Amino acid sequence: MQLAVIGMGLIGGSAALDLKRAGFAERIIGVGRRPETAAEALRLGLVDAVAPLEEAVAAADLTILAVPVDAALPLLPRVLDQVGEGQTVTDMCSTKRTLMAAVAGRPRRARFLGSHAMAGTENSGPRAAQPDLFRGKIGILCDTEASAPDAVAAVEGLYRALGMRLVRMDAARHDLHTAYVSHLSHAVSYALALTVLDKERDEAAIFNLAGGGFASTARLAKSGAPMWTPIFMNNQDHLLEALDAYRGHLDALREAIARGDVPALNDLIARANDIRRILG
Amino acid sequence: MQLAVIGMGLIGGSAALDLKRAGFAERIIGVGRRPETAAEALRLGLVDAVAPLEEAVAAADLTILAVPVDAALPLLPRVLDQVGEGQTVTDMCSTKRTLMAAVAGRPRRARFLGSHAMAGTENSGPRAAQPDLFRGKIGILCDTEASAPDAVAAVEGLYRALGMRLVRMDAARHDLHTAYVSHLSHAVSYALALTVLDKERDEAAIFNLAGGGFASTARLAKSGAPMWTPIFMNNQDHLLEALDAYRGHLDALREAIARGDVPALNDLIARANDIRRILG
Repeated sequence: MQLAVIGMGLIGGSAALDLKRAGFAERIIGVGRRPETAAEALRLGLVDAVAPLEEAVAAADLTILAVPVDAALPLLPRVLDQVGEGQTVTDMCSTKRTLMAAVAGRPRRARFLGSHAMAGTENSGPRAAQPDLFRGKIGILCDTEASAPDAVAAVEGLYRALGMRLVRMDAARHDLHTAYVSHLSHAVSYALALTVLDKERDEAAIFNLAGGGFASTARLAKSGAPMWTPIFMNNQDHLLEALDAYRGHLDALREAIARGDVPALNDLIARANDIRRILG
Repeated sequence: MQLAVIGMGLIGGSAALDLKRAGFAERIIGVGRRPETAAEALRLGLVDAVAPLEEAVAAADLTILAVPVDAALPLLPRVLDQVGEGQTVTDMCSTKRTLMAAVAGRPRRARFLGSHAMAGTENSGPRAAQPDLFRGKIGILCDTEASAPDAVAAVEGLYRALGMRLVRMDAARHDLHTAYVSHLSHAVSYALALTVLDKERDEAAIFNLAGGGFASTARLAKSGAPMWTPIFMNNQDHLLEALDAYRGHLDALREAIARGDVPALNDLIARANDIRRILG
């Protein structure tokens, strides 16, 4: 199979590595906005060649958009209008509703299947690409009923080759669930990093004590704005709902601490501990 | 050296394991409130014997209090009143000011050195004890000028045997810094777990998507109330200050998202990314 990978950063680059290794793709053409990125992806062996967008898409059985969602929004309709029968387009973005709206009613709509590989690190760019990034993680296929059966099969094959477990979900539910389990975690982590960095101005040595607990909770705050600002903006309604719910729980903790209410605090912590059921 | 370890859970048990292995202690007597805990610590080989408090302290060159801070508060003056010259007492609690106040002016005050091993996991009890829990982490010695030089030396030896890097700090600064880098992280994580668990009642499948980002940010929410409620209560003022600062940053993020203010959000995230300077 011939593959076009638009965006050769953490997600696109890691996918390309594994898809080549697994024999899913015979040839992978990369598309990059910036010449330095393209050169680096070639040098790192992530893709076999780089080409302009139209050329790469024309030659590809399967085109993967692996760019931030704000970049994907204008690109996706353009790519989709170009493909014919037998060609499939997917994206790997973290929000789905705005992309679905951008292609709704498009003549080639059925050649597109919106998907999301729930994997990543806090790093970005071609040098962040790594093998087995996706193995064992969840790959989500959205609104499959709007896609042609062979397009669904092509994207299923892609995610299976990456070693992912497949889940089908409509775009609306996808965006609601990711707001709570992924996007909220990032907002929480950014606020924590900002708080302690701010305090560092008065208390220079404060990070001497930053051990494993802080590192774990603040890890996502290393994630870059080019990816995360568009995610927050494209999932604004659900994320605001999640943030308000979060603030309610944070306020309940704060009030219990302020009142010195040991039973209330014990109860809140015991309820939070139920997360062991999920995290093991 | 003869050691008494009061509390044979994650912290006391892990310390006992390493101190025996390192040859720092010839014999370790454990003290446990509950007979089952004592029996389990013996069975796991964490201590050489168990004994009642007074008996263990009387025989010990160095007594370590490794119990939650609310349990340490009444115990510490009692233990300290019992020891003589040549005997040293330390604690490994996560807050220091209330313990310092509990022994201020006590006849044997100079035999006590308040300390804090900045290490742990989200698990508790004797079975959570593990070797090398403390290695390479920070051990804090508080208000050393209030302790006899030989008591300081004994506790320094203890932490060196555990492989810790030593930092000296007054109790007030210790509590302020840990409020920001440790206690706030736990509160943030509890609120995140409560939020997503709450949403799970309406959206049963929500945790299907809970990947590495969520697991990292919510990990500390597994930590138990018997340890953490007393920490929050004993550092109430600083933690409330940290929580209010945190809420200010969270609100700034929320407002930027609500306004659709891309430059403001980019700026907040870029500032948060400075945490890479600390976390690497």
